[in-house]
Amino acid sequence: MSSPAREVAAARSAVAATVADLPPDALVLVACSGGPDSLALAAAAAFVAQRSARTATPWRAQAVVVDHGLQDGSAQVADDAAAACRGLGLPARVVRVQVDGRTEAAAREARYAALDQVADELGAAAVLLGHTLDDQAETVLLGLARGSGARALAGMPATRGRLRRPLLGLRRSDTLAVCAALGLRPWHDPTNEGSHTDASLRSKVRGEALPALERVLGPGVAEALARSAAQLRDDADVLDTLAGDLLDAVRTADGLDVDLLRAAPRALRTRALRSAAIAAGCPAGALGRAHVLAVDALVTDWHGQGPVALPGGIAASRACGRLALGTAPA
Amino acid sequence: MSSPAREVAAARSAVAATVADLPPDALVLVACSGGPDSLALAAAAAFVAQRSARTATPWRAQAVVVDHGLQDGSAQVADDAAAACRGLGLPARVVRVQVDGRTEAAAREARYAALDQVADELGAAAVLLGHTLDDQAETVLLGLARGSGARALAGMPATRGRLRRPLLGLRRSDTLAVCAALGLRPWHDPTNEGSHTDASLRSKVRGEALPALERVLGPGVAEALARSAAQLRDDADVLDTLAGDLLDAVRTADGLDVDLLRAAPRALRTRALRSAAIAAGCPAGALGRAHVLAVDALVTDWHGQGPVALPGGIAASRACGRLALGTAPA
Repeated sequence: MSSPAREVAAARSAVAATVADLPPDALVLVACSGGPDSLALAAAAAFVAQRSARTATPWRAQAVVVDHGLQDGSAQVADDAAAACRGLGLPARVVRVQVDGRTEAAAREARYAALDQVADELGAAAVLLGHTLDDQAETVLLGLARGSGARALAGMPATRGRLRRPLLGLRRSDTLAVCAALGLRPWHDPTNEGSHTDASLRSKVRGEALPALERVLGPGVAEALARSAAQLRDDADVLDTLAGDLLDAVRTADGLDVDLLRAAPRALRTRALRSAAIAAGCPAGALGRAHVLAVDALVTDWHGQGPVALPGGIAASRACGRLALGTAPA
Repeated sequence: MSSPAREVAAARSAVAATVADLPPDALVLVACSGGPDSLALAAAAAFVAQRSARTATPWRAQAVVVDHGLQDGSAQVADDAAAACRGLGLPARVVRVQVDGRTEAAAREARYAALDQVADELGAAAVLLGHTLDDQAETVLLGLARGSGARALAGMPATRGRLRRPLLGLRRSDTLAVCAALGLRPWHDPTNEGSHTDASLRSKVRGEALPALERVLGPGVAEALARSAAQLRDDADVLDTLAGDLLDAVRTADGLDVDLLRAAPRALRTRALRSAAIAAGCPAGALGRAHVLAVDALVTDWHGQGPVALPGGIAASRACGRLALGTAPA
C-alpha cells in the first residue's frame, strides 16, 4: 500500500512546479468546486503558497468557487466549498453564473468566462484547475467516440494562457487520497455517477467505459491514453502552425488559391480550410469533419459542383481557381 | 432490416475500386484464412475478376491460404479454406509457414513474408487482405492501450506496396452477411473468442473492449475510431516526411547537430531521433517512447549525462555539440 503522504507530496510538488515561472508576489487563483480533485488542489496550493512566504519568490493563493446554478442546492454546495477553502487558509469567493443550456460545453464556457473575469479583476497571474490524468483519459476517449482528429484527442493542455492544470499527472484516486490524508470531506457530484439518469456522456466514460477498458486491457489504460494525448498534442501544435503558414501562403485578394491548396498534404489542407471557415464566421463547435471534407472536395475533386453550405450561414464556393468562404447569399 | 444483397454489392464495389488502377491482365492474390472476412473477400474477388473478362481491363484472381501451424488441425482448416476458394472459381494454393514464437506479431510477420514470396513467384500485381473496419478500430484501441503515437493509432493503410485492404470500410458483420447470402460457411477461429484462455489482447479488444465502448458510448464507436485513424494517418504522413527532412538537415560528418535539433519542435525531433536510432541498429519493435525521450533529453535537458543505452546494443551519447548513435562499447 502506498503512503497517503506520497499523494500529498505529489500534489504539492505539482503545484510548486506549475507556479515556478511566476514573478514574486503573484496572485494565483484556484478554481474549486468542492470535489476531490479541486479540493486536493486547493489544499496543496494553500500549503505551497504559505511555505513560499519564506522564499525569494512568495506568492498568494485565493480560491474561486463557481456556482453554475444547474442543480438544486448548488448555492449551498458552493458555499460549503468556499468554507472548506477558507478552512485551508485561502481567501475564497463564490461567483454565481448563468449557463445557457444544460450541456457540459455550456457550463464549461460559463465557468471559464467567470474565472477569467475574476482573474482580470484581481490581477491574477494564473488560474489553477484541478483536472487529473483521469479527466485527460476521458477526454481522449470522448474524442475517439466522435471520430475526432489529433487536436481533440490531445486533450487538455497543462498550460494555456493563464490557465494551468498542475494535477494532470495525478490519478483521481490520488486526489481522494490527499483529501483523506488531510481530513478533508470532498463533495461528490451526483451527476458524475454513471447510474444517474442525467448522466452525461463524460460520466458514462468515467463510470463505465474507462473501467471496462481497464478490466479488459489491464491497469494503466488511463496513463496510456494520457501518454497518447501528450504525443498527439505535440503533433497538433506542429500541424496547426504549418496549416497557418499554408493559409497565409494561399490567401489572395479574391479568395484562396486552389492550385496551391491542392498541392499541399491533406492533413495541412483540411486544417487550413477549417481555420478559413471559422475565420469566415462558422461556429467552431458546429463545424464537423464532413463539412471540412465537402469544402476540400471543391479543391481536390472539382467537377463544377455548387457552393457548400456550412454552419452559421457560411458558404464555400469555387470560381476561376479561387475558393471563397463567406456569408451565403440569402 | 438491410438486404443481404447490399453487403454483397458493397464488398464487390470495394474490390472493384481497389483494383481499378492495375494494368490489364494483372494477377491479384487474395489472402484467405477461411474466416468470414477473407472468405467474403475471396467471393467478391472471384465475382469481380470473372466479370472483368468482358471488359477492357480483365484481371485474374487467385487465392493463397497461409497455414501457420500454430493450432491442432490447422492444416485441415487451410485445406478447407483452399477448397472453399476453389468452389468460388479461384485457383488456390496453401502455403505452410514456420512461426517463431506464439505472438500475433510473429504470426503476422511469417504470413506477410509468405504472401510476398508467392506474389514474387507468380508475378502478382496486388495482394488483397480481408481486414475490416472492426480490425481497424481494434488496432486503434490497442495502440491507445499502449500509449502510442499517431502512427500506431493510424491503424492499417488501405494500400501499402502490393498489399491492399478493400474491406476497411465494411463491418465484420457485413462480411458475415456476405457469407450467409452466398451460402458460404466460414471457419470461426477459436482463438478469436474472448473466453478462450489463450485469448490474445486483440481478441479481448474484439470480444470485450469494443462491445463495452459501444454499450456505453452508443453504436458508431468502431466507425468513429476508424475515422480518427484516417485523420491520424494523414497527420503521421506529413510529420514523418518533415522528420525525415529534419534528420537530413541535422546530419553532420561526426553526428547529429544538437543545436539544430533543439530548435525543432518536439514532435519532429522525437520522430527524427527514433529514425536515427533505428538506422543505427535499434530493433523498431523494442524501441519505446521512454527510450526516445531519454535520447531527446541529451538534446534538450543536457547536464553532462552519460550515454543512453538503447535496445539492440545501441547507445546514444553527446559530445561537443554532436549526438552520436552507434554500437555501445563492450
